[in-house]
Amino acid sequence: MKKVVVAMDSFKGCLSSVEVEQAAEEGIKDVCPDCRVICFPMADGGEGILEILVEATHGTYHEVLANDPLMRQMKTCYGISGDGETALIEMATVNGLPLLTELERNPMLTTTFGTGELILDALDQGCRKFIIGIGGSATNDAGLGMLQALGIRLVDDGGKALGTGGKIMNQVASIDCSSFHPALRNAHFTIACDVRNPFYGPQGAAHIFARQKGADNAMIEELDRGMHSLSEVIKLTTGREIGHVPGAGAAGGLGGAFLAFMNAELKPGIELLLQTLNFGERIKGADLIITGEGRVDQQSLMGKVPSGVLEEARKQSIPVIVVAGSVEDTEILNQAGFQGIYSIVSTPMSLEEAIKPETAKANISRTVAQLISLADYFQNRKNGSL
Amino acid sequence: MKKVVVAMDSFKGCLSSVEVEQAAEEGIKDVCPDCRVICFPMADGGEGILEILVEATHGTYHEVLANDPLMRQMKTCYGISGDGETALIEMATVNGLPLLTELERNPMLTTTFGTGELILDALDQGCRKFIIGIGGSATNDAGLGMLQALGIRLVDDGGKALGTGGKIMNQVASIDCSSFHPALRNAHFTIACDVRNPFYGPQGAAHIFARQKGADNAMIEELDRGMHSLSEVIKLTTGREIGHVPGAGAAGGLGGAFLAFMNAELKPGIELLLQTLNFGERIKGADLIITGEGRVDQQSLMGKVPSGVLEEARKQSIPVIVVAGSVEDTEILNQAGFQGIYSIVSTPMSLEEAIKPETAKANISRTVAQLISLADYFQNRKNGSL
Repeated sequence: MKKVVVAMDSFKGCLSSVEVEQAAEEGIKDVCPDCRVICFPMADGGEGILEILVEATHGTYHEVLANDPLMRQMKTCYGISGDGETALIEMATVNGLPLLTELERNPMLTTTFGTGELILDALDQGCRKFIIGIGGSATNDAGLGMLQALGIRLVDDGGKALGTGGKIMNQVASIDCSSFHPALRNAHFTIACDVRNPFYGPQGAAHIFARQKGADNAMIEELDRGMHSLSEVIKLTTGREIGHVPGAGAAGGLGGAFLAFMNAELKPGIELLLQTLNFGERIKGADLIITGEGRVDQQSLMGKVPSGVLEEARKQSIPVIVVAGSVEDTEILNQAGFQGIYSIVSTPMSLEEAIKPETAKANISRTVAQLISLADYFQNRKNGSL
Repeated sequence: MKKVVVAMDSFKGCLSSVEVEQAAEEGIKDVCPDCRVICFPMADGGEGILEILVEATHGTYHEVLANDPLMRQMKTCYGISGDGETALIEMATVNGLPLLTELERNPMLTTTFGTGELILDALDQGCRKFIIGIGGSATNDAGLGMLQALGIRLVDDGGKALGTGGKIMNQVASIDCSSFHPALRNAHFTIACDVRNPFYGPQGAAHIFARQKGADNAMIEELDRGMHSLSEVIKLTTGREIGHVPGAGAAGGLGGAFLAFMNAELKPGIELLLQTLNFGERIKGADLIITGEGRVDQQSLMGKVPSGVLEEARKQSIPVIVVAGSVEDTEILNQAGFQGIYSIVSTPMSLEEAIKPETAKANISRTVAQLISLADYFQNRKNGSL
């Protein structure tokens, strides 16, 4: 092995992708000390994308004050790429579900206002390109809060300005864009978005995602009706029909707001990441690519880290193996093109034991070392060195 | 992969070595349908060696009546090789610990008489070569029962003939070999023996093995004294000093009886098996050898199946990988020469779940398939077929 690429997701609840890859790299180096190991810590649109993007673009972090999902000011941050052109934002850092206690979760009240504030700050810093991860939101306000922060005024049928939260969607009678931040006309947004749900309806944002954000049945119905009626107002305002667009329902409809009001494209998080990282170029000539995530099964084929990595690798006929804490559906994964799928578990043990960071790290290192040893043996036979 | 050898031990308490290898072969064929797979179900002197030897020599089973460890007649069997020359005997089939209930275990009473009866029957069938596995015995009678069955008379210092069981060892004053079966003079015994314990003393048969056969502290002391005094009588009778010979303490001193009274050599079970199977010849040209056992760790290097297989494979520079239910000490095993060590466990699970035969079979097949896929990829690159 002369060049091995490691491009793994985090093992959720156990190790970050940086930690996972450090362990994998150790395993490779144990067996092939001279091997060039290139690590791409990965994420699929959810947690961790900010750190990865800042790292990959040699960017910097910018601390700002912005409003959390319940409009309480908090200290948070976003990134700006090393060349100063691109703002790197993870919406969950300011409007994510983990910022709320169980009791505070209520999508009638939560807002994306803070996300808008981060965009505003970056616009003022001169950024015109935006990469935004929208996973993990606490909100179902169709991005109205973000739009408000950027200057849009929402009024009810009495002409009264509306407040924030998912509850206002029903009441929006018209959308006044006259004070929309002018720089947005020249800005471009790439949104990391891993869901294909429409804006409203049985597969829409409210029905599929609102419950985990704290909604009960009645709220879900009200939110869905709100999104339906709002989509009509949006159509009247922008001429855009977002009701059934895949991804418009992402992050409680924030996806739809981007599509309707900004110069935005939605991309699967992993695709965006690989593109930003210049992955295709940097893996050239690799002998092997190791990907993985905490749990791998046929779902891993659907826009997750392993499938994105595989797609790029196949273009160059580089073999990809999967290393995971738990494996299933290996036949299907083989058919999809993975050369091998391996669990790191060394012995029967409880989940509790398996996800201890020290246990998991040792298991990753050991498994990777043993696999590299096997692959290296057969590759070296080829080179006649045995 | 054109030729892969599978030479695995049983996964104790879970799958026989035949079952383990069927699962492994399925895994290989899933990935390389044209690969020639040669299976050597293995055992290391313990359970299963009879079946393996009968199979390997195209032998037949012979049913006989013989006495169990408590001198109760039972139906049992031994094997005769296809050429009719070699008797294949597993002492545990007639005098093994599993034949007794927990309460019946008592090495003061248990005897190897039945083992002698099997030998006697085989002698009468014309066999003059013997391969005997002595693992798993219920006895600590220094093989006196076996000798009695073969015609030897044991008398106490009053000249009275003695009965059976470990308790008689103390009382043996002289050993009368005049009626010893005459055919034994021309017979040769190869004993599969995996322990190196001496006849008596702190590392002797009684101190190390009698407790698991049902002895309490007092019995252990009495048995050890009995073996010590018996070794003196044996020396007087045969001129042979077996007290400190490694392996003389195997199977409660049965090893010593073979050494003193028969034309016998003790061999590690795995070595004997590999030789009988003509292993070295039949693995020629193999691309890979897969070995393994239920649990692999540094102990696997000490006369167990994996180490025996490795030793033969190294003579021909064939890579050996280990597939096991549980792995530990992989670094040490790598240093010993194993190309890779892999656990079959797919996900955190209880031991109870892991040793369900269906679970274990699926896990073996899957793991082997994934490993062969990786090895085959890099081997085929060598052949330019990619």
